[in-house]
Amino acid sequence: MKKLFLAALSGETTARPPIWLMRQAGRYLPEYQAVRAEAGSFLELCRRPDLSAEVTMQPIRRFGMDAAILFADILLIPYALGQELDYREGEGPVLARIGDTRDLAQLKVGGAAARLAPVSETVRKVAAMLPPDCALIGFAGAPWTVATYMIEGGNPGDAARTKRWAFSDPEGFQRLIGILVNTTGDYLAAQIAAGAEAIQLFESHAGLLSGPEFHRWCVEPIRQIIARLKGDFPDVPVIVFPRGAGPHYEGFAKAVAADCIGIDTLIASDWAAVRLQKDCAIQGNLDPQLVVVGGKPMLETAGKLIADLAGGPHVFNLGHGVVPPTPPEHVGALVDFVKSWRRDKRG
Amino acid sequence: MKKLFLAALSGETTARPPIWLMRQAGRYLPEYQAVRAEAGSFLELCRRPDLSAEVTMQPIRRFGMDAAILFADILLIPYALGQELDYREGEGPVLARIGDTRDLAQLKVGGAAARLAPVSETVRKVAAMLPPDCALIGFAGAPWTVATYMIEGGNPGDAARTKRWAFSDPEGFQRLIGILVNTTGDYLAAQIAAGAEAIQLFESHAGLLSGPEFHRWCVEPIRQIIARLKGDFPDVPVIVFPRGAGPHYEGFAKAVAADCIGIDTLIASDWAAVRLQKDCAIQGNLDPQLVVVGGKPMLETAGKLIADLAGGPHVFNLGHGVVPPTPPEHVGALVDFVKSWRRDKRG
Repeated sequence: MKKLFLAALSGETTARPPIWLMRQAGRYLPEYQAVRAEAGSFLELCRRPDLSAEVTMQPIRRFGMDAAILFADILLIPYALGQELDYREGEGPVLARIGDTRDLAQLKVGGAAARLAPVSETVRKVAAMLPPDCALIGFAGAPWTVATYMIEGGNPGDAARTKRWAFSDPEGFQRLIGILVNTTGDYLAAQIAAGAEAIQLFESHAGLLSGPEFHRWCVEPIRQIIARLKGDFPDVPVIVFPRGAGPHYEGFAKAVAADCIGIDTLIASDWAAVRLQKDCAIQGNLDPQLVVVGGKPMLETAGKLIADLAGGPHVFNLGHGVVPPTPPEHVGALVDFVKSWRRDKRG
Repeated sequence: MKKLFLAALSGETTARPPIWLMRQAGRYLPEYQAVRAEAGSFLELCRRPDLSAEVTMQPIRRFGMDAAILFADILLIPYALGQELDYREGEGPVLARIGDTRDLAQLKVGGAAARLAPVSETVRKVAAMLPPDCALIGFAGAPWTVATYMIEGGNPGDAARTKRWAFSDPEGFQRLIGILVNTTGDYLAAQIAAGAEAIQLFESHAGLLSGPEFHRWCVEPIRQIIARLKGDFPDVPVIVFPRGAGPHYEGFAKAVAADCIGIDTLIASDWAAVRLQKDCAIQGNLDPQLVVVGGKPMLETAGKLIADLAGGPHVFNLGHGVVPPTPPEHVGALVDFVKSWRRDKRG
C-alpha cells in the first residue's frame, strides 16, 4: 500500500492528513542538542552522514510523523560552490559575500553536486532506518532564496543588495540563478537516486521579491528545476514552499508544475481550499507559535485547519519551522491529534 | 479646484497620478540630517513642532510632491501611553516591553491623545506653509502593528511574544487593541482638526499575522478607527497600508471602508488593477531599491506601474519607504517623470 504521505501528494483525499513538521528535527529536542554538541559545529553536523541521519530519525522515533525530512541546510549549495560559510551562535549563517557578476568566476561550478555526496550518504542511511509507513523527503533551497544569502552574506533582511543587482544587471544576475538552477537540479537528482521519495523546494524569501520580478526570479527557476527532475523521476512528487508569496500563491502550483504547495502562516486555510487546492495538494499551515502555546488554542486551530482542507489532498504541517522554545510534548499532542482525526468522524 | 491628490483619493481617474513617497522626509536628504543633528535625538525631533514642520516641508520644496506627510512616528502613541521609548543608532526603537494583561494597568490611557498635542501643532504649522496644490496627510500606526512594538520592545521580528499572547489570552490582548483603537482615533481626529486633509494608517506588520486571526486583529480594529473618523469627518479620505497582507489585500478596502489601499512591493500592479482597483484608489508600489538604482530600470518600471493602474484612481508611491542610500537626484527624476506623464500621451 502507498505510504499515506505519498498518497496525499499524488492527489488523494486521504482518511486523515499525513503529518510532518518543518524543522521537526532541531533545537527544541534535547536529543538533538546532544548530537549537535557532539558534532562541534552546525556545518560539521550537516557534513557527517552518521550524525545527520541520527538527527533526521529523532522526531520519527519520538513522535511517529508520517514523513522524515533529510537533515541538511539550504546553504550547503553555496558551500559546495566554494563560498566560505560559518554559523555563528545567535547570529545565523555568515557567508563571504558575492558582490556582482565578476565574482561569479570564483564559484567552483564544476563538481559542486559531487562535493555534496555526504548528503546523499545521509539519505541512504535514513532510507535504511525508516519505519515502513514513513516517507523520506529530500530538499534544497530555491535559487532566489539561496541567492539572497549568497549576496547579502547571511540572513538577507530586505535583500537590498540582491534586488539592486537584479534590477541593475538582470543578465549577470541570471547567470547566478542559472548556476543555482543547474547545481540544485543535480543535487536533488542525487538525493532521489539515494532514496528520497519526495522533494521540497524552500523558497523561504519569496516575499522579498518585487512584484514585476516575481515570475522571472521565483517561478521560472523553480519551473526549470522541477521540469528537469520530472524528466528523470516522473513519479517523485515535488512540494514547493514559496513562503510569503501572497497573491502569487494563486496559480503558482500550475505555473511550476508542483504536486503540492506549502502555505505560510498568513494564508487563511479556507482561502487555500477554494483558490489553491483545485490545482494540487496543500501543505501547512499551523502557526508555530501555537505549538509553543499548546493546549486548546493549538488543537482547536489545528481542527479548523484540517476541516477547511478536508475537501482535497492535505499534508498537515506548520506555516514555518518549529521554533526552539517549543515544548516537545506539545509536538507530541499535535501529532497524536492529527493521527487520530478521521474523515468519517467529522461532525 | 480640488487638489490632484485628493481628487484621486475621491475615486477620480486623474490625468496623471499624484505622487508622494513614504519616508520622503528622511535620512537620504542632507537637509534632514542637519535638522536631525540640531534636534539631538529622533524623539526630540518628533516632539518639536518647529523642527518637525521644517522636515515635513523639505521634500516638498526640493521635489514638489503632490502631498506632504506629517513628520512623526508610529511609536508616539506608546510613548503617550507612558511606555519608555528610545531610538538607538543602528538598533532602531527600544521600548519598555509590555508582557501581559496585568501590564495594561500601567498604561496612562486617559489623556494620551492630549499628550500628543505637539503633533497637532506640527500639522497646523505645515498647513500654513504648504503650496496651494499640495495636500497634507496625517497618519498613525494601526493597532496590531503598534502592539507588536509594544510587546516585543522594538522591531518585532516574527512577533513571537505578541502572537503567543494573542493566541493564549485573546480577551486580554483585545483590551490592549481596544486601548489602541480609542487612542489612535482621538489622535487622528486631532490631526484632522488641526488641518490634515487625508489620513494614512500604517499596518506595517500585517504580514506577521496568522491567517485565522487576520480579521480579528487587523481588519476589525482598522474598520473601527475609520468608522469613528468618518462619523466626525465624512469627507476626509483614509488610506490604509496593510504591508505584507498578501491574499488578504483582496476585499480589504471594502471590509474596512478605506478610500485607498497602499500596496507593497510584492504586489503585481496588473493584479492590483484587476482585483483591488474596483473597490478603491490604489497607492504604490515601486520598489524603493529601484530608486537607489535609478535611471532606466527605475523609469521603465515606473512607467509600467502607471500604465497598469491607468484604468482607475492611482496615487504614485513606493511599496515601502525611501531608504537612506537613495540618491536625492533619483527621487527628483522620479517625481519629474510622474508629473510629466499624461493620460492622453499614452502610446
